[in-house]
Amino acid sequence: MNSKIRALKNQIKALNLQGMIISNPKSIRYLTGLMAEGTLLITPRENIFITDSRYMETVNSFLTIDQEIVAYDIRNLNKTDLESIFDGAENVGFEEAYVTYEQYKFYLQTYRVNLVETDKLIELHRMVKEDDEIENIKKACLITDNCFDYIKEFVKPGVTEKEIAFEIEKYMVTHGAEGLAFDTIVASGPNSSLPHAIPTDRKVEEKDIIQFDFGCKVNGYCSDFSRAMFLGNPTSDMVNVYDFVLKEYRKIISGLSESSDIKSVLKECEQDYKNEKYDLLHSFGHSLGLDIHEDPILSSKGELKLKKNMLITVEPGVYFPGKFGIRIEDTVLINKTGATPLTKSGTMLDFVKKVC
Amino acid sequence: MNSKIRALKNQIKALNLQGMIISNPKSIRYLTGLMAEGTLLITPRENIFITDSRYMETVNSFLTIDQEIVAYDIRNLNKTDLESIFDGAENVGFEEAYVTYEQYKFYLQTYRVNLVETDKLIELHRMVKEDDEIENIKKACLITDNCFDYIKEFVKPGVTEKEIAFEIEKYMVTHGAEGLAFDTIVASGPNSSLPHAIPTDRKVEEKDIIQFDFGCKVNGYCSDFSRAMFLGNPTSDMVNVYDFVLKEYRKIISGLSESSDIKSVLKECEQDYKNEKYDLLHSFGHSLGLDIHEDPILSSKGELKLKKNMLITVEPGVYFPGKFGIRIEDTVLINKTGATPLTKSGTMLDFVKKVC
Repeated sequence: MNSKIRALKNQIKALNLQGMIISNPKSIRYLTGLMAEGTLLITPRENIFITDSRYMETVNSFLTIDQEIVAYDIRNLNKTDLESIFDGAENVGFEEAYVTYEQYKFYLQTYRVNLVETDKLIELHRMVKEDDEIENIKKACLITDNCFDYIKEFVKPGVTEKEIAFEIEKYMVTHGAEGLAFDTIVASGPNSSLPHAIPTDRKVEEKDIIQFDFGCKVNGYCSDFSRAMFLGNPTSDMVNVYDFVLKEYRKIISGLSESSDIKSVLKECEQDYKNEKYDLLHSFGHSLGLDIHEDPILSSKGELKLKKNMLITVEPGVYFPGKFGIRIEDTVLINKTGATPLTKSGTMLDFVKKVC
Repeated sequence: MNSKIRALKNQIKALNLQGMIISNPKSIRYLTGLMAEGTLLITPRENIFITDSRYMETVNSFLTIDQEIVAYDIRNLNKTDLESIFDGAENVGFEEAYVTYEQYKFYLQTYRVNLVETDKLIELHRMVKEDDEIENIKKACLITDNCFDYIKEFVKPGVTEKEIAFEIEKYMVTHGAEGLAFDTIVASGPNSSLPHAIPTDRKVEEKDIIQFDFGCKVNGYCSDFSRAMFLGNPTSDMVNVYDFVLKEYRKIISGLSESSDIKSVLKECEQDYKNEKYDLLHSFGHSLGLDIHEDPILSSKGELKLKKNMLITVEPGVYFPGKFGIRIEDTVLINKTGATPLTKSGTMLDFVKKVC
């Protein structure tokens, strides 16, 4: 029995839908474990995965009877087969945040049913993680921490940002990671002021800040982690900014739990930024799981209700265009009465100095 | 003057559109050179790039007056600003193949204009490459070829698929590539029967086929390349299949040009597969550029008109589930009277044998 699909079926029934088209590959992986391109159809009679010949071998060897999913090669389905798939269904849901306007028109034409937009139905389920999902993220976080330990030894004046990024990626993938969670950021000197910097051929040098932001995946589940490293002694300006970022980081972490009023903590942080006249270039954090960016995000605007077993990043940062930037980030597990960082590398500045 | 935007403006005028919302980041990069997240708006008065604070520094330092693009931070635009952006426009186009149903609703609400779906308007322009685009692809292909030379020396019994994949990626990125064109495939032994195999911890061993499929990007432009390598002497079965794939590869290459009837060549190839009772698991090739998969694809079905300066892959493959697979692929430039492979590594089997 596939309990996740059962839960989804109850959910769509409550919305007066008799079927659902699932196109988001992450949601398909969440529901089925499948990693192949294709579309999952929940129909009144059966659960169908439509894929193409490139993936049939993998899909057939993966699916068991217990999963209650039948796989078809799209080549073997004619117009009539497709039109009758949702027989008995009046309203069929689709994922509006994932389906393109073109796909929407294609689904209408192909399945000849009434299509109803649904908003993050499966993503809502994915927000609170199950034990096996948390285990995967913990493993990804451990690899990430170990990688940072390794990379602290590797970094020295003269190596390029690209070389460092590569060493990070190689370490993670050869130490149990399935892949990268996102494009690795290694931004040195003035490049560190770009929150989304792309590693360049710039050689790191004495007195640089090096900003790291990286993470990996284990069984599809992501880690996310940032640290600033100093090559040599930081200026007092940098120390002050580092202390500020660390203070904000700690404030947010201590405000995270199922029961806490996190929004007022975030508002307080926003005020701290205003007091220092620092620009807030990005949110204080985002949830993660099979996607590196999931809901909810740590924002004082809109709804924000934390629940036990949500996974979220805490990542305050301060940036001075053309000069430098500093960000501290951990992947954090929400508990009933507190929160536990799952990436555990030290955040103290004296620790960072020791690196140099 | 931005000639690509000018051309687009003429194109949308012909469609009776007075504006256009461009959301596909590859098309934005094509039109503007920008690599930041955001949306490009062609309006009756000006060309606007709306981004967020994370990218403002990069965008402002990149844009010149010549490009005729004004950048705004979304934070600094209120509801009225947004609603008046398309003032004077009745019909505004959007990219139906790229915009999600949710974004479509958001655009409707935000800009309060009549939205008209457009089908690959900019992608059509992108099909025929300009000189600078071809130069970038040539550079990416040269790095790819050099990488294969390097990797032939690196591969030996006992190294894992993952380690080989990493070595490929490291070589390309440290030899001028901006990044990977797609996830590297290194599939050894029975894994080679999966066209989309993911590198595993399997150690390659004597008598293995190793199937490679990799490529890189230079200034955003992709290369794509596959070769099968034998570790030790191949069986006569493998030799026969290799010869078949090579024969198909040559047949397709010799049928490529602006003037040739490529569809009848592809039909002939399909018949060759049928005669041998081989499954055709994927098309014979696809165009590429800023995207690794672009139109047109090499298919005997539907419209297929090749033009000078199109870039396309030729990649026949034969697969035996659980046993082995062989694919030969090059990135090929279409000329008026012929075609030139831009990846140039040898394809002869005796050459491949020498590798072992």
